[in-house]
Amino acid sequence: MSVPNNTFSEMAAVMRSAKRIGIASHIRPDGDAIGSLLGLALSLRLEGKQVIPLSNDGVPWNLAFLPGTDQIVKPAGDVLELDLAISVDTASKERVGPNSVIAMSAAKKSINIDHHGSNPRYADLNYIDSTAPAVGQILYDFLSAENFPMDDAVRQNLFAAISTDTGSFQFPSTTARTHQIAAEMINAGLDTGALASKLYDQHPMRRVELLRAMLNEMQFRKGQRIVSWNYTQAAKKQLNVQQGDTEGLIDHLRAIDTVVAAVIFEEQKDGNIRISARSKSDAVNVAEVCGRFGGGGHRLAAGATLPGPITAAAETYLNELENEVG
Amino acid sequence: MSVPNNTFSEMAAVMRSAKRIGIASHIRPDGDAIGSLLGLALSLRLEGKQVIPLSNDGVPWNLAFLPGTDQIVKPAGDVLELDLAISVDTASKERVGPNSVIAMSAAKKSINIDHHGSNPRYADLNYIDSTAPAVGQILYDFLSAENFPMDDAVRQNLFAAISTDTGSFQFPSTTARTHQIAAEMINAGLDTGALASKLYDQHPMRRVELLRAMLNEMQFRKGQRIVSWNYTQAAKKQLNVQQGDTEGLIDHLRAIDTVVAAVIFEEQKDGNIRISARSKSDAVNVAEVCGRFGGGGHRLAAGATLPGPITAAAETYLNELENEVG
Repeated sequence: MSVPNNTFSEMAAVMRSAKRIGIASHIRPDGDAIGSLLGLALSLRLEGKQVIPLSNDGVPWNLAFLPGTDQIVKPAGDVLELDLAISVDTASKERVGPNSVIAMSAAKKSINIDHHGSNPRYADLNYIDSTAPAVGQILYDFLSAENFPMDDAVRQNLFAAISTDTGSFQFPSTTARTHQIAAEMINAGLDTGALASKLYDQHPMRRVELLRAMLNEMQFRKGQRIVSWNYTQAAKKQLNVQQGDTEGLIDHLRAIDTVVAAVIFEEQKDGNIRISARSKSDAVNVAEVCGRFGGGGHRLAAGATLPGPITAAAETYLNELENEVG
Repeated sequence: MSVPNNTFSEMAAVMRSAKRIGIASHIRPDGDAIGSLLGLALSLRLEGKQVIPLSNDGVPWNLAFLPGTDQIVKPAGDVLELDLAISVDTASKERVGPNSVIAMSAAKKSINIDHHGSNPRYADLNYIDSTAPAVGQILYDFLSAENFPMDDAVRQNLFAAISTDTGSFQFPSTTARTHQIAAEMINAGLDTGALASKLYDQHPMRRVELLRAMLNEMQFRKGQRIVSWNYTQAAKKQLNVQQGDTEGLIDHLRAIDTVVAAVIFEEQKDGNIRISARSKSDAVNVAEVCGRFGGGGHRLAAGATLPGPITAAAETYLNELENEVG
């Protein structure tokens, strides 16, 4: 680590001295993005701050039940007057999205809290912990240690962040501390059963139809060690798919016993192909493979974007991946 | 509670005074059955006891990776010479299965450790805690409190019991203690990521094909509030289904947002229809509905058996269920 982390107390002092704070997370937000964004935003509001939670791409339907999502601002391209800009779970400065970059561009100071090891520490104050399974876990420890207020709404958001980014406590990144935090939250009154039900048991019918389509169309390579699915614009339109519908879909491919690497190629409206890749083996580093195409992520979960058409993009990526899967 | 629970120390004293101990769990064993059976059996062996772990129906493939499963005895109808017979996660005396009933019939003493509120306390010593999400959780607390030895193999089994019976910490039955136990196990060196991968990411292809078949054939009632699937012998044969393949399958039906109750009707070899029912609402008590057909279970997860043919059994059951779903 070339530049060391700032301390929790240094970050707390900067937050406490600011009046107007913008907070943003990454584009195409997942549970850790929205949960971390709102967990921190709602706590700072309880502390008396003016807080503007920003999401360049809005809120996916499956997370819209979280308290505070109705107050998230989808920036329109204006520059906000801010004392402090905080980004959470955002591996590079640009990943907050173009309009959030503009919105926060005039902030007097910036803080960057993340768990991606590749994070280049782009802010004035930085706290990167790649051993944390979720930024929600870093934030829970930060808010606790620095005595920021936490109510049920803050806990709901941080639990959603932690639960979704650990695959409900299943991923190897899950630590003893992750479970201790869950225990502390339950002891503080959090209804994790109700939350888990909202996070995992509320799939709309079109999500089930999407899963069915994937299971009917998935393709195998390398003796069933690689599985992939070409998820086209046509399929999206036919099923009326919405943002958030694909969350967790790839885990069904990952869960096949022969599979070492699973990939979904998702055709975007602009014709580009968004790649989501998962590995089940330490020997197959999908972040490295995605990196060859300008993408990145974690060793076992990464992404990249390639130009279309979808079949050519899939062929290009899978040829690279095949060399890694022994 | 008419008859109070025996204490942990009373049970520990009886176990410590026995030389030869048989332990059994319920027929059609799931993760809590096998994990609790082996967690207790391996600890008592470390304590120096002769222990015979019994499973009337053997071990399903998906749990066969757990340490000690190779030592589980599938009883053949013989009476064993035992000082003590212990049943775990077994709501009634007969549910250990006919051959396990015979095997343990001559034991000098019996202990019954369970978390089903309906358990009639059929043994000499009984410990029923219906607030425990898994018998594995009761056993972890028991072994810890009474200083029985625990090694990694014991922890693996108890974690598997707890993780599977809480739906990976998602069910409302999950308590702060559940997470504290997971944290303690990780601190003791348990690799929960590897375990979760073996429990949840190792579906054989036929399991994926089974899921696909279910999604293609599921049927809805009551404005999509009830979903059901008729799982026939013909489908089982076509996909070469094995014991354990259906584990977790019903959760995909449960997860549809409109669904209040999900039911799988599974045609047995003898023509009888085994019913698995799940509810997502406190207002719909599937244990009560299953009870009308001689079955039982928990409010939100229950089962029963009806005579075939499958379409008639489904119609009979769903008509009863429809009255409960408003």
